[in-house]
Amino acid sequence: MVGGGQGAFIGGVHRIAARIDGEFQLVAGALSSDAARSRASGAELGLDPERCYASFADMAKAEAMRADGIEAVAIVTPNHVHYPAAKAFLDAGIHVICDKPLTSSLADAKKLAAAAKKSGVLFVLTHNYTGYPMIRQAREMVAKGMLGDLRVVQAEYPQDWLTEAVEATGSKQAAWRTDPKQSGAGGATGDIGTHAYNLARFVTGLELDSLAADLSAFVPGRQLDDNAHVMLRFKPQGKAPGAKGMLWASQVAPGNENALKLRVYGTKGGLEWEQEHPNHLWFTPFGQEKRLITRGGAGAGASAARVSRIPAGHPEGYLEGFATIYAEAARAIKALRRKGGKVPRDVVFPTVDDGVEGVAFVEACVKSSKKNGAWTKL
Amino acid sequence: MVGGGQGAFIGGVHRIAARIDGEFQLVAGALSSDAARSRASGAELGLDPERCYASFADMAKAEAMRADGIEAVAIVTPNHVHYPAAKAFLDAGIHVICDKPLTSSLADAKKLAAAAKKSGVLFVLTHNYTGYPMIRQAREMVAKGMLGDLRVVQAEYPQDWLTEAVEATGSKQAAWRTDPKQSGAGGATGDIGTHAYNLARFVTGLELDSLAADLSAFVPGRQLDDNAHVMLRFKPQGKAPGAKGMLWASQVAPGNENALKLRVYGTKGGLEWEQEHPNHLWFTPFGQEKRLITRGGAGAGASAARVSRIPAGHPEGYLEGFATIYAEAARAIKALRRKGGKVPRDVVFPTVDDGVEGVAFVEACVKSSKKNGAWTKL
Amino acid sequence: MVGGGQGAFIGGVHRIAARIDGEFQLVAGALSSDAARSRASGAELGLDPERCYASFADMAKAEAMRADGIEAVAIVTPNHVHYPAAKAFLDAGIHVICDKPLTSSLADAKKLAAAAKKSGVLFVLTHNYTGYPMIRQAREMVAKGMLGDLRVVQAEYPQDWLTEAVEATGSKQAAWRTDPKQSGAGGATGDIGTHAYNLARFVTGLELDSLAADLSAFVPGRQLDDNAHVMLRFKPQGKAPGAKGMLWASQVAPGNENALKLRVYGTKGGLEWEQEHPNHLWFTPFGQEKRLITRGGAGAGASAARVSRIPAGHPEGYLEGFATIYAEAARAIKALRRKGGKVPRDVVFPTVDDGVEGVAFVEACVKSSKKNGAWTKL
Amino acid sequence: MVGGGQGAFIGGVHRIAARIDGEFQLVAGALSSDAARSRASGAELGLDPERCYASFADMAKAEAMRADGIEAVAIVTPNHVHYPAAKAFLDAGIHVICDKPLTSSLADAKKLAAAAKKSGVLFVLTHNYTGYPMIRQAREMVAKGMLGDLRVVQAEYPQDWLTEAVEATGSKQAAWRTDPKQSGAGGATGDIGTHAYNLARFVTGLELDSLAADLSAFVPGRQLDDNAHVMLRFKPQGKAPGAKGMLWASQVAPGNENALKLRVYGTKGGLEWEQEHPNHLWFTPFGQEKRLITRGGAGAGASAARVSRIPAGHPEGYLEGFATIYAEAARAIKALRRKGGKVPRDVVFPTVDDGVEGVAFVEACVKSSKKNGAWTKL
Repeated sequence: MVGGGQGAFIGGVHRIAARIDGEFQLVAGALSSDAARSRASGAELGLDPERCYASFADMAKAEAMRADGIEAVAIVTPNHVHYPAAKAFLDAGIHVICDKPLTSSLADAKKLAAAAKKSGVLFVLTHNYTGYPMIRQAREMVAKGMLGDLRVVQAEYPQDWLTEAVEATGSKQAAWRTDPKQSGAGGATGDIGTHAYNLARFVTGLELDSLAADLSAFVPGRQLDDNAHVMLRFKPQGKAPGAKGMLWASQVAPGNENALKLRVYGTKGGLEWEQEHPNHLWFTPFGQEKRLITRGGAGAGASAARVSRIPAGHPEGYLEGFATIYAEAARAIKALRRKGGKVPRDVVFPTVDDGVEGVAFVEACVKSSKKNGAWTKL
Repeated sequence: MVGGGQGAFIGGVHRIAARIDGEFQLVAGALSSDAARSRASGAELGLDPERCYASFADMAKAEAMRADGIEAVAIVTPNHVHYPAAKAFLDAGIHVICDKPLTSSLADAKKLAAAAKKSGVLFVLTHNYTGYPMIRQAREMVAKGMLGDLRVVQAEYPQDWLTEAVEATGSKQAAWRTDPKQSGAGGATGDIGTHAYNLARFVTGLELDSLAADLSAFVPGRQLDDNAHVMLRFKPQGKAPGAKGMLWASQVAPGNENALKLRVYGTKGGLEWEQEHPNHLWFTPFGQEKRLITRGGAGAGASAARVSRIPAGHPEGYLEGFATIYAEAARAIKALRRKGGKVPRDVVFPTVDDGVEGVAFVEACVKSSKKNGAWTKL
Repeated sequence: MVGGGQGAFIGGVHRIAARIDGEFQLVAGALSSDAARSRASGAELGLDPERCYASFADMAKAEAMRADGIEAVAIVTPNHVHYPAAKAFLDAGIHVICDKPLTSSLADAKKLAAAAKKSGVLFVLTHNYTGYPMIRQAREMVAKGMLGDLRVVQAEYPQDWLTEAVEATGSKQAAWRTDPKQSGAGGATGDIGTHAYNLARFVTGLELDSLAADLSAFVPGRQLDDNAHVMLRFKPQGKAPGAKGMLWASQVAPGNENALKLRVYGTKGGLEWEQEHPNHLWFTPFGQEKRLITRGGAGAGASAARVSRIPAGHPEGYLEGFATIYAEAARAIKALRRKGGKVPRDVVFPTVDDGVEGVAFVEACVKSSKKNGAWTKL
Repeated sequence: MVGGGQGAFIGGVHRIAARIDGEFQLVAGALSSDAARSRASGAELGLDPERCYASFADMAKAEAMRADGIEAVAIVTPNHVHYPAAKAFLDAGIHVICDKPLTSSLADAKKLAAAAKKSGVLFVLTHNYTGYPMIRQAREMVAKGMLGDLRVVQAEYPQDWLTEAVEATGSKQAAWRTDPKQSGAGGATGDIGTHAYNLARFVTGLELDSLAADLSAFVPGRQLDDNAHVMLRFKPQGKAPGAKGMLWASQVAPGNENALKLRVYGTKGGLEWEQEHPNHLWFTPFGQEKRLITRGGAGAGASAARVSRIPAGHPEGYLEGFATIYAEAARAIKALRRKGGKVPRDVVFPTVDDGVEGVAFVEACVKSSKKNGAWTKL
């Protein structure tokens, strides 16, 4: 693991997610850019001190040389470190599991994609919400044509934790997320807008044509957007015209904790899903009653079942969804271990290409907003 | 009543709404532009045949001459008739209660506003959602500063009844709403978008600076928009910067019946309300738990109480909200009956000016959309 | 109207309900047992002073003699007055619309039923919740066998307004409801338990065999129960064994306003309904997804449609449900006006027999509870 | 681990739960009473073949002798095996983590409690719902007096998976649960009623005085109850009178997956919680608005925080709640490793005594029901 030392948030989440299905073991880390903190953090996690590295570069080099070296690395640092860290491990032939957004700039993202392709190893991007069973279910239903031609996609991701200037009062999580040097050009767009965008793409399969964005930094002194209003135009689906959409990402909406929501409407039906109630998916075939499809319940199909662990009515949550990305990575890695092995078709996870598109989305939002909301291609 | 004959929808709603508080009696009508249908409809409603008129012009003239002539008229026709009909009654010195949108063009709207001002009688526009107690409550809370400076306003009004081309298969309600001659330039924008816009304005008190719209007519052959995506920029509130907003109106979103929803977020808190559960208002003071304010329950104040009829937990609905507009009109009319009487300050209803603004909103949406979503002043 | 003067609650509800569908006009009243208050209340409501009576006895006598005398009376007094008032009007050949519970004792109830039968006029009991469209829908679905043989019936009606001893601090509504002389033997059981019981009976059509009750008066000094726990055993349905049920009525459950809820489960499916969201009915055919049936939406049938006024998504509430009882009464009265006329089959309202059963339920609860919860026949 | 081989359900849940916080490693098992299946199951889980035992007796003996023997065992068999298996490990001085209900008879339960006390090792009963953060929160709020004196406790646990006779058509899970030899005297009461009862006890701290039960086996041929209606009387709380309650457990309620719900009402407020939305707790201080307390959000206190892993709005679910029981066990075991170590006060988990009470509850229900619902002491 790179990053995720004392005081971090998402590193701990990755560690639990990796443990849930019992497929990974944490054995080495460059847990902090501060060498002492890295060691201390490693000790806390029971790592062999020898494998607590002072830097990701040292770690990549050393682990690549060990007979029992790591098979995969999890990169859980602030955004600007993703590129150099991931590149080091790709170059060392080690599978990479990397947090989102892919990088802090589109230029880095493209270079990383090239490096990933060249490396021949796996690149797994933890857009964790794609791991929820009901998101897999929604994707399957759209793919099967149960919604008909898509027309409208409404994605939103409001939060409230940055309503006040907590970056100025000691919140480490807030500080790096509102710092362009560490986060890149997008604030709310990069931190959560990119999740909402990825989810919309994952479920619908639609490709974006262009967007028009109006970004705001409402909190005085904040350098990056904390509220993003975006209109979306998708490319035509075969003969059908392109769908339209809206995306709202906000960190200043009091009363919203992590209220990612996706609604998709087509000629034959509509789907609605909320992250805070992830085991429920609402489906309305046009002209019929609204139906509640539950994880494990009637109406839930194969793609939900294969990423589900327990029966209907026993809520699986955020950590399980996150764990599914790790489980898919494990399945892919196992397949690749075999000579001539390929990643099976039903193993699904976001890749470096999704990451490039996510960063492109953020930069297009920023560009459009600077041009007073002009329609901007991705 | 003008309009509201056999086969109509909103006319019956107005009649119930007018009866609920017992302040109005229906005594005359030009219930249809077809004289025979007008008579038949009048007979069904028990009207004196002498007061079932063949046209609104006849009615305005005749009723103005009668000693027992009507005090107020309700105009419930398709949009394009609002202007001439309302003008006739205003000119006759009869109070007008008119359905929304005010007219089918901004030019007509402005002329009507001038006529209303000149007439000295009341003009009440039935933006009925402003009659809901919890909307009054929300407005009071914003006005009291309980949300602080406003930042984000999310309004949406999805429906699904025009998902297919029902205007082509005999639905009278669909036919006139999708016909530019009867509806004006806006489809979903005029029919429901204008409600959502009015509600946002009513609750927040914010004035719109400009908007950027992307309108679609998804159903093949449809002449007016059936889906509207709009970004909003409000004017600064004193020293505070302007709020931003989004508005989504759709008639092609399967699974949505009449899902008007308003969310308002400020520096100190957030409010959320849904028309289909109108007795509930969610309030989150920033940093505290979300609270459920119910009509008649703890936390509900004076402005909700004065338009509420029954105790908490006994749901009041759409008809009661609509009736409140009539009740406010009755209070205003009674006040004006007295010599030198004025409409009391706490009597609140949408007026002809709100109507002008509503039509301006529709036309600005159409204009912006034609200019590829360019920001457009109201 | 008898009762419903200044300071009353349910009288105003009846008046609105009677107006909503425009079938009744209030022309006379004995609005209070205090003659001066009766006159003052009548004046407020615009009644002819001559028809503001000092007592129900006077009113029944005088109205029966008038050529334009009332066709029907609404009795909206505390429970103990129902019997003598209703009897007076029945004896005078005037249709009676009476609030629930029917009387304050089973003996009175039985006498009243006999008087009603003898009179030949209508007796309509305002168990208003039977007027909700989705309750009609639920009843139709059970009757059609869509749930199969019924097994479990869970009814509950929690409130919180009597959590403290408000009867001791000036609440008129609380005072008579907690006074055995005015209410009868049951507190929460009579005031709301009887509604829940009636609703369960109305929807399921099941007959009760016996009950076991545990009643409590939690508030110190309170003479009547404010919380009732009841287990129910229904009679066999043909060859199928009897269903079982639970009923909970409480006036001391903080956080509950008027939370009447009914759940019915059978061999083939389940239904769930809540009074505070009356336009929604949840139906799960066993082995399939849960479905949301909305008033006016897909899946709602004829029996809901005939008591519904506006389209799906426009919430109808408590007053509309109440108005349906009046509308049904009006249909029945109109039918009876015709020579040899009979009440049509599809006109449905609670009658004096339902009232007798309701009082029997209350007395059985009290009896069972006194016998330490022994199973007691109705 | 004892039990949990191929085809089992709860064993896999225990394994994930044990992994989530990284405190346990599975190293040995008697995974099935069938030796071959035990070996095959062990191989699948990567166990050393030498430590895949043919019986729990062998395992207890062998592991106790190893220097690297297990510190704790998880017993996840059908109910009737809990007693002999647990006893074998207690006698061997190995900590026991055991699924609920404790045993299939009260006699066994009492013997096991005695054995546990004598052993000096830990006995952790996986009443997993006590591990949910909002249940800890609710318990803290009751203990702090935020609800005042308790009056009413409503517990329910409906499911629908046994609506038809699936035990007759190959469901292993259904077969043992409906077999008195494997389950004991209670069906729904033992399988889920005991969870609901335990939860009510855990949150309220109230002790049960007596109960009156009406049990049914609705599905023809079923030997154990599949629906339980129970009235509860709790012992006085100091000077305050005893609270009353109802408990409903059902496996034949279509539309209910795992709908455990607890509502508690006192003189000062009410709490409501549903297992299928475990991150939410509704709290109404009497006379104020209802509040939504979320895991990690405002209003959530220390006892929720210490068993919570991720921020508010990121749902934790069933597995995390279950994992908390394991995490508490790990904390206790670590404390006991130290010389003279004691389990810290804030480490909370259900024990063998809760297990005895749970079995006593089941047997009291059966006894009361056989006596036609007579009030029965625990």
